[in-house]
Amino acid sequence: MKGIVSMKAYTELTKKEREELFSALMNEYKNYCNMGLSLDLSRGKPNSAQLDISLGLMSVDMSRENCFSRGGLDCRNYGVLDGLPEMKELFSDVLGLDPADIIVGGNSSLQLMYGCLTRAMLFGVPGGRGPWSQEEGLKWICVTPGYDRHFRITELLGFELVSVPMTDDGPDMDKVEELVRDPKVKGIWCVPKYSNPTGNTYSDETVRRLAAMECASPDFRIMWDNAYCVHDFDEAGDKLADIFALAEKYGNRDRIYYFSSTSKITFPGGGVALMAMSEANRLATLKILGAETIGFDKLNQLRHLAFFGSADNMLEHMLTLGGVIKEKFDITINNLSSLRGLGIAEWTEPRGGYFISLDVLPGTAGRVHELMKGAGVVLTPPGATHPYGKDPDDKTLRIAPTYPTDGELDTATQILALSVKLAALEKLGV
Amino acid sequence: MKGIVSMKAYTELTKKEREELFSALMNEYKNYCNMGLSLDLSRGKPNSAQLDISLGLMSVDMSRENCFSRGGLDCRNYGVLDGLPEMKELFSDVLGLDPADIIVGGNSSLQLMYGCLTRAMLFGVPGGRGPWSQEEGLKWICVTPGYDRHFRITELLGFELVSVPMTDDGPDMDKVEELVRDPKVKGIWCVPKYSNPTGNTYSDETVRRLAAMECASPDFRIMWDNAYCVHDFDEAGDKLADIFALAEKYGNRDRIYYFSSTSKITFPGGGVALMAMSEANRLATLKILGAETIGFDKLNQLRHLAFFGSADNMLEHMLTLGGVIKEKFDITINNLSSLRGLGIAEWTEPRGGYFISLDVLPGTAGRVHELMKGAGVVLTPPGATHPYGKDPDDKTLRIAPTYPTDGELDTATQILALSVKLAALEKLGV
Repeated sequence: MKGIVSMKAYTELTKKEREELFSALMNEYKNYCNMGLSLDLSRGKPNSAQLDISLGLMSVDMSRENCFSRGGLDCRNYGVLDGLPEMKELFSDVLGLDPADIIVGGNSSLQLMYGCLTRAMLFGVPGGRGPWSQEEGLKWICVTPGYDRHFRITELLGFELVSVPMTDDGPDMDKVEELVRDPKVKGIWCVPKYSNPTGNTYSDETVRRLAAMECASPDFRIMWDNAYCVHDFDEAGDKLADIFALAEKYGNRDRIYYFSSTSKITFPGGGVALMAMSEANRLATLKILGAETIGFDKLNQLRHLAFFGSADNMLEHMLTLGGVIKEKFDITINNLSSLRGLGIAEWTEPRGGYFISLDVLPGTAGRVHELMKGAGVVLTPPGATHPYGKDPDDKTLRIAPTYPTDGELDTATQILALSVKLAALEKLGV
Repeated sequence: MKGIVSMKAYTELTKKEREELFSALMNEYKNYCNMGLSLDLSRGKPNSAQLDISLGLMSVDMSRENCFSRGGLDCRNYGVLDGLPEMKELFSDVLGLDPADIIVGGNSSLQLMYGCLTRAMLFGVPGGRGPWSQEEGLKWICVTPGYDRHFRITELLGFELVSVPMTDDGPDMDKVEELVRDPKVKGIWCVPKYSNPTGNTYSDETVRRLAAMECASPDFRIMWDNAYCVHDFDEAGDKLADIFALAEKYGNRDRIYYFSSTSKITFPGGGVALMAMSEANRLATLKILGAETIGFDKLNQLRHLAFFGSADNMLEHMLTLGGVIKEKFDITINNLSSLRGLGIAEWTEPRGGYFISLDVLPGTAGRVHELMKGAGVVLTPPGATHPYGKDPDDKTLRIAPTYPTDGELDTATQILALSVKLAALEKLGV
């Protein structure tokens, strides 16, 4: 991954040196244990200071005259299945999407993804041979490490989850291209920008190959969860290629189901989600979605429109937010630096998003988790980043630095570095 | 139905009398046609005056200190899949439900219903033999006339829709009890109070029989859409028996999926929906729902809680709203009264809800719809109240009086009575 730090050292210590080091570190660890801490590095949640940046959303003037859409529709009432045109335009301006491709949903993009896949199971998708639930032995590509909630949906729906390793440039495309020669392979989960949990962004060539590849399944789908689309720490954020433009070029526009939301722009507990897709996909989706609901919450769309006003304002808002999050990442990376050169850990140093992926000495992730718990720090369970919750190497830990306060985070990540060292020394023999 | 007016007369006219009457009425009709009207009796939507009664919901003080739940949870953030406990309590107080049975959703109860049925299709339900999508030839009972959006969901999911006639007391229970002896019959749609479109309420004995009946299918489900739960015109509203209490008595609590929402209490475009179900159903539901979303919009729950404060306030609010709606129903019934004794129409006179069902001379509903259209008044398409959109008798029209202003409604329902007469005379021969 980008930003990974090269390693050496603990293996070069003698057993006696390891024992002495272990004993000193264990004393340090015990001091933390005695502090009665209760800290949490497991949740990809904004903290209160971040949420306060969007507080204006709650005091938007929603008096009667402001309850109407640009077109004069009373948004308090029924109507508009696919979202207000002005909401589509705002998303389009921010995300570089065709507004005509957009369907605005409720507060959860995950729910939109689940909806797309359950519709595929029950009714099929354009280009396919019917409901996926009628086919046997379907498989789904999971870029690993990846997002547990993605994996869980396809696991529940009965897909066999097939791991493809994440590289600096995104999924290992040689492997992906090989897998999609199997007509049973129906799709792939992607978090293309600041991927969860590795924090890297797919290279232009990776996006191109995803858009261009030959798939044996005629109705293969890329679940393109651009959750961290504008979640740069500063203006030097990663740039993601336009998958719709590339897919168009290769005649594969129907392949893309695109998702995003304002959950980590405004409020996870009351944001606005969207999906974007080709006309054929959209018409098929709206036909079923129109049986599912009369429409999503339009007043919350109006509230978001009034709060942001323009794409520029939203991007400026994200830079403010990015600055706050960067501090958290800096604290974390700074404490992980004590692992530098020890040959027992690698980690990512993203330029945006919500997560850092930490690879510890194989076979020690579970032990690190246990040590952290002993000191009162909750980590995401090891394995969560892998299909079926199982990391065969027991080495990957997802670090979510945003939720604790700066002080808590500093303590928690010092304990993290310490636990990684202790677990490594145990593994090497003390 | 309750309130139906007895009929006689047009059939007793001579052909000449009919011709003279037709000619006079046609002149009256043509005058309306020349007025260039554009009126709508098709939409079960509140009008602006009704929406204004809930306008305070939009100016609830949502400053920072009010963004927290009673338990201290920051509702701007992730968390709480099944709804805030205080929101469950409010719904429980209003609806007489056990708060533990409730799951609070997004803005759409229809979406919760669709969710329950798609989960049943893909994963099965407690007591069943697995995913319903693996079974062939499934059937669903549709009380007719009924709600087109209900019928559409089960049609899309591939059920054969089986009609059961609505009686004054609710569904014809002899027919229902006979049908559920077939293990292929998986469930029934019910709008038990102020049913859409007939406006009647199931009798206690009907609710008891639904709760008690022996079903051949071990996982039969009653979709209990109590959309008009507190939508009485005045304090003398209909009383609906407690289906959960009755189902408990007969050991059939798992049979009930209960739904409601504030769509017609506050805003269709931004309300709060709920479902309620037994523990077994709830646990099975939450297991899948937890893969679908991290949680619904909690800020809108807080907003509703702050706006209402208590069940008493919500019920008082509904009486205010009921008064406004009653005026619309009175105008409609008053104009339909000119059909009294003519032997060409029957209609319901509900004590709450949103709809009136009008039965015209068999074979003339389509013609009435056409005549209305000619005069610039949109009616719900005939057949919409029946499975597959087909009314074999071509006689039932759903009248939605709430959306037009009082003046518009008066004109539209005068034209309605006129069109019913014209169509009947055409049918009888002029």
